[in-house]
Amino acid sequence: MWKLTKNDYDPSRQLVEESLFMVGNGYVGVRGCFEEEYPYGQSIRGTYINGLYDRIPMIHAEMAYGFPTVQDKQPRIADTQTCLIWLDGERAALYENKYETYYRHVDYHCGETERSYVFITKSGKKAHLKFNRLASMVNPHVLAYKIEVIYEGHIEFTSILDGSIENYSNPGDPRTGQGHTQLMEILKIDYNTLESRLLMETKTTKIKQATLVRHNVSSPEEHKMLHSLNGKKIETKITGKNHLTLEKICVLTDSIRMEDAMGGAISIHSTLEGHSYEDLRQSQILYLNRYWKNSDIEIKGNPSDQRAIRFMQYQLLQSVGIDAYSNVSAKGLSGEGYEGHYFWDTEIYVLPVLMINQPERAKHLLEYRYHILENAKKRAKELGQSKGAAYAWRTISGIECSGYFPAGTAQYHINSDIAHAFIQYHLYTEDWNFLIEKGAEVIFETARTWIEIGNFHKEEFHLHNVTGPDEYTAIVSDNYYTNAMAKHHMFWAYKIYEQLRDYDDPKVRIKLKELMERIDLTVEELNYMLDASERMVMPYDEALGIFAQDASFLSKPIWPFSSLDPTKKPLLLHYHPLTIYRHQVLKQADTVLAHFLLEDYADDESICRGFDYYEKITTHDSSLSSCIYGIMASRCGYSEKAYDYFSDAVFLDLKDTHGNTKDGLHMANISGTILSVFAGFAGLRNTDTGLKFRPYVPSQWEGYSFNMIFKGRTIRVNVDENFEVVLLKGDNLLLSIFDEHYELSLMNPISIPLEKKGVIS
Amino acid sequence: MWKLTKNDYDPSRQLVEESLFMVGNGYVGVRGCFEEEYPYGQSIRGTYINGLYDRIPMIHAEMAYGFPTVQDKQPRIADTQTCLIWLDGERAALYENKYETYYRHVDYHCGETERSYVFITKSGKKAHLKFNRLASMVNPHVLAYKIEVIYEGHIEFTSILDGSIENYSNPGDPRTGQGHTQLMEILKIDYNTLESRLLMETKTTKIKQATLVRHNVSSPEEHKMLHSLNGKKIETKITGKNHLTLEKICVLTDSIRMEDAMGGAISIHSTLEGHSYEDLRQSQILYLNRYWKNSDIEIKGNPSDQRAIRFMQYQLLQSVGIDAYSNVSAKGLSGEGYEGHYFWDTEIYVLPVLMINQPERAKHLLEYRYHILENAKKRAKELGQSKGAAYAWRTISGIECSGYFPAGTAQYHINSDIAHAFIQYHLYTEDWNFLIEKGAEVIFETARTWIEIGNFHKEEFHLHNVTGPDEYTAIVSDNYYTNAMAKHHMFWAYKIYEQLRDYDDPKVRIKLKELMERIDLTVEELNYMLDASERMVMPYDEALGIFAQDASFLSKPIWPFSSLDPTKKPLLLHYHPLTIYRHQVLKQADTVLAHFLLEDYADDESICRGFDYYEKITTHDSSLSSCIYGIMASRCGYSEKAYDYFSDAVFLDLKDTHGNTKDGLHMANISGTILSVFAGFAGLRNTDTGLKFRPYVPSQWEGYSFNMIFKGRTIRVNVDENFEVVLLKGDNLLLSIFDEHYELSLMNPISIPLEKKGVIS
Repeated sequence: MWKLTKNDYDPSRQLVEESLFMVGNGYVGVRGCFEEEYPYGQSIRGTYINGLYDRIPMIHAEMAYGFPTVQDKQPRIADTQTCLIWLDGERAALYENKYETYYRHVDYHCGETERSYVFITKSGKKAHLKFNRLASMVNPHVLAYKIEVIYEGHIEFTSILDGSIENYSNPGDPRTGQGHTQLMEILKIDYNTLESRLLMETKTTKIKQATLVRHNVSSPEEHKMLHSLNGKKIETKITGKNHLTLEKICVLTDSIRMEDAMGGAISIHSTLEGHSYEDLRQSQILYLNRYWKNSDIEIKGNPSDQRAIRFMQYQLLQSVGIDAYSNVSAKGLSGEGYEGHYFWDTEIYVLPVLMINQPERAKHLLEYRYHILENAKKRAKELGQSKGAAYAWRTISGIECSGYFPAGTAQYHINSDIAHAFIQYHLYTEDWNFLIEKGAEVIFETARTWIEIGNFHKEEFHLHNVTGPDEYTAIVSDNYYTNAMAKHHMFWAYKIYEQLRDYDDPKVRIKLKELMERIDLTVEELNYMLDASERMVMPYDEALGIFAQDASFLSKPIWPFSSLDPTKKPLLLHYHPLTIYRHQVLKQADTVLAHFLLEDYADDESICRGFDYYEKITTHDSSLSSCIYGIMASRCGYSEKAYDYFSDAVFLDLKDTHGNTKDGLHMANISGTILSVFAGFAGLRNTDTGLKFRPYVPSQWEGYSFNMIFKGRTIRVNVDENFEVVLLKGDNLLLSIFDEHYELSLMNPISIPLEKKGVIS
Repeated sequence: MWKLTKNDYDPSRQLVEESLFMVGNGYVGVRGCFEEEYPYGQSIRGTYINGLYDRIPMIHAEMAYGFPTVQDKQPRIADTQTCLIWLDGERAALYENKYETYYRHVDYHCGETERSYVFITKSGKKAHLKFNRLASMVNPHVLAYKIEVIYEGHIEFTSILDGSIENYSNPGDPRTGQGHTQLMEILKIDYNTLESRLLMETKTTKIKQATLVRHNVSSPEEHKMLHSLNGKKIETKITGKNHLTLEKICVLTDSIRMEDAMGGAISIHSTLEGHSYEDLRQSQILYLNRYWKNSDIEIKGNPSDQRAIRFMQYQLLQSVGIDAYSNVSAKGLSGEGYEGHYFWDTEIYVLPVLMINQPERAKHLLEYRYHILENAKKRAKELGQSKGAAYAWRTISGIECSGYFPAGTAQYHINSDIAHAFIQYHLYTEDWNFLIEKGAEVIFETARTWIEIGNFHKEEFHLHNVTGPDEYTAIVSDNYYTNAMAKHHMFWAYKIYEQLRDYDDPKVRIKLKELMERIDLTVEELNYMLDASERMVMPYDEALGIFAQDASFLSKPIWPFSSLDPTKKPLLLHYHPLTIYRHQVLKQADTVLAHFLLEDYADDESICRGFDYYEKITTHDSSLSSCIYGIMASRCGYSEKAYDYFSDAVFLDLKDTHGNTKDGLHMANISGTILSVFAGFAGLRNTDTGLKFRPYVPSQWEGYSFNMIFKGRTIRVNVDENFEVVLLKGDNLLLSIFDEHYELSLMNPISIPLEKKGVIS
């Protein structure tokens, strides 16, 4: 239940398993490539540092003002994985018919991967090979490998620190990198008796990145080690016999986090003096014990789902950024899809999970947005605004890196997605200090965009020429999702202003005044926002009784699903945008997502009719879709459907159902699927009136439980025949369960029998 | 009155004058560069063949299905212009302070340019230099130069046939070519005593292009000629003294028009045996006499306008294609702007003029569209259609070459623009044979696009996700222009079917049947078209009393003209498309253009209110705008305004008011301005109910007159105090003048006193 294990080796799944068996810690990620290399075909042999970026040119077929001319790209850094193995001079690797008893697993409790097999030499001798690796969650600059070989004969390792790295490129697929694969240059490469040192630099942005590798060898027999420089590689040859164990303790740093990357790496290395792989593993276990104690989602009666959901929680832990210089890219630290860019995925899919059980990590991700606020302000200017901030649709450093604005920059909703996360964070933590120091500024500046780009017409406030989350419709008027999010955003901008203005602590009031002066924000602007929020048009179709995705959406023809070739999926790879745009067809949840995030803006009937309507015309070509439809199926009482969506989503990467897990794990889907336990099955919502639950147990499970942190409290939630809420720590709390109010206290856990499973009238 | 003359030489206007003084004949065009070269700065030293194209890659920042991956580009061909001049070893050219009595003119009657100056050598001796050139309108493969030098001393020419040519590139301006300047490769370069021969080939499309140059030298003194090969150039050195005249008779061919380009060139050359420059000039004069006799627009009382309008008519003659393999590119044959691509400019701006006085040339342009119909059908498939044809927004060979689909492919209206031209041609000529052989197929196939991309909703027919002519608004629902044109188009598709079905001649009826079988067109489809036409939604705003540019246009805010930096023009170079799109602001006439082309779809009041409304928010950043606003100002009785627009438009290139005449002359503006005499001042319209006039004389003129050809008739129109129509040839004709009906016959010219000048109720 605490491992993902593969007992067979399938070369055709090599690239997918490199993603599944990555090791990472939020700072660094290494794909699960083979130390001894892979004898057949291709490997995406990548190691990545979160937040590291180079810049490459962006070429447009037809240039226009404000189109980005450069974009960020996450570079692959020096490879530390490689260690070739020779047994009596014969190369050991997974050659066909030359191995037996293969296995590989990732252990969520130990925080490491392990791989082992018996290699059979030409002469029929057998060697036992075992490979362990971990990325330390205690000291994120540390990556460690352990390679153990038992063989009666001569054993030789060639451990390589490789600076000749290049990013992956597949010109045929717009979702992976196109050209520009040489992003890192070597500044210095050398070694001494203790360690190999490689200082590299991003080609254009000139960010330094240092990698140090120390080799610890142990063997009952005599052995020796020899370093040599071979072009852009340092090769360390280790020879011995019978039983040879090599530990590679690597330190990775960069000059975004520390001025002197190499100096910092050396200093970190020195603190590790005498640490073995096992020492690192032990502290990793301690760390993970704490993590799982707080965060584990326990599923009763369904081991397969239990394993899959733990896989997801573990992957989130491995890829989510841990400081203000990084975030969660679309593929985390597990691959190169989408060039390592950060999208709205963070705020709408990942943060809602982190806020429940890792609020301190959630805060780092919000700090990242604050960190790039200046770039968002610059972008707003480029987009013709006189004030405010417009966050980039995709970015690492904060600059807009979207090359196709109708499905990029036009997704202005990212501004409100970010604001929504800041507001949710505030509702989860009541961290007033963070709000006045950082949150308020982001919320105000981003809210300004709405009054700059929107306009009143016939007493209503409109937003023209925007694109909602569903990229199968673009450049429309009054996208419901966008309008709803902007309405909420502006309402809260005003409300936060009011709350801070009237706050007890005069220091907070002074800081608000200073902030408003600094960013030249007037009360008139805030009043205008409130007015725009109140009069925001929310397109509704009386005949259908649903909210319309946008002003023109429902007057378009429905996509002719039945008459078209069903193998032409995803649509975006088989139809011109104009063909897709002029139909009612969705790539992913749009209005339905708005109904999840902002359910108070719609009545239950419209929400569920909307679900019924939009579900039929949604292709889920985006991996961000199924989890949301699952959550909203729960909301509408479609429990079987909700489970089906959950089931699709939870195995998306494990079964590679989108066919591109090779490019990395789908982080938004991972997080959205975890969220579908909290918000779907348990029906959790967090608004300014407090926590709400509408829990049920899907019929495929016996029950489930999880912990959550809320305004300093620790709460245990257990759902089976009863819905039980236990306050483990903290003050009394008012809760809403199926729209009825309860008071939770340390002495009085809540327990409600669940009869009407999953049915919301 | 028949010349454009410059009596001073201004180096800063060099590139603009290269465009103004181009010589061309519809097949080949040569910019007015200096034979002896230009001593300072840059020259765009281009010669172009209409319809010749290479293909270069089109790179997209983010690729999507159906985006073009290659594009056509008009290559510069071998340079024949150059002839360096030495006088006693001293290079003659327009060095500062070394020349006097400079002039250059283009003569519309002789069809040649002439340039002359006196060069002063270091020793103070004077040389008389004169340069003439013409592109033969009688034999379009022939280009001829004449260079005459009178100088007491040694004279030397180096005449160069130059294959080392490259296209112009300016990475900063999206309207000119970007990179990829090497488009032609030399296959063979040689010479004999008679001539220099250069066979080149387009790099990717492998179209051969041959250039032959024969040098005829005459002098009262002894002289000699010597050829030599210098890399990619053939240099012909001619030496003599006192008085030396060189004629270069060049023949240019290509393998689009003839299988063996070089063989064809040689054979054409042989027919010219013994022809001198003067011979070519004499036949040019004869040709132009005929042309002006039929086509001259005579303006009384305003010599400046007279000269300018003749300049325009002459330029049209020089650049409009003369066969089915070519068309009129945005810049004609006078420059490299827009990569030599053909747009809708042809059908909406150029053809309406040609149909009035050069119907046979109009027919060639329509044949070109028929010629590329197959590519338009392929494109329709790429755009998700099951049937029909979708013409490329910009192209040479027929493939889509627009790199930005919101202002390219989304301009589906080009289909109806083309159909409109076929219909107008039919109304002008009653060429039933052309209709059944080519026109009907184009009209039917293009009409199919509307029923494929449009849909009925609540009893009305809608067109979603299209862009109208005004590219400052894109991807909208129910663009008035597009809907009106599609309505007209589908109506005519049905009507043509009906007319051909019921046609007297059974051969025509059989051909219709064959055509419909061949393209699998059913009567049901045609009925559907008629129904869609009748129920086409025509967005109208009751409060404003105007037709709305599109469904959402009038609910957007008006562009804040007053508060923005007025130097930021054109808007497209200073604002992101999203900023522009979300405002009411027009680059060029859109609804107003529809009101011109299809005035029967709107009442006079709405038309004129629409003019008032849209005019205020139109920037005329496109050179296609002013002429249309001018025509419609006439329509609404705003005669002063109409003249102002005319005046702006007629000097656009002559005064370089858009700042980019260096890249070539603005052919649509040229033609639209000529049209504004016919359709604006004379108020000419041609519909299925016949010719209509609403004539007046602008107060800046005393009068004007022109000839027109209509269904085999020749008609003379004269407007001064009276409106006079004289039938010079052909059958009686019913006319409408100020909505009253008249019958015109050979014996009975019409003459109506014009009191209410320019006032339409």
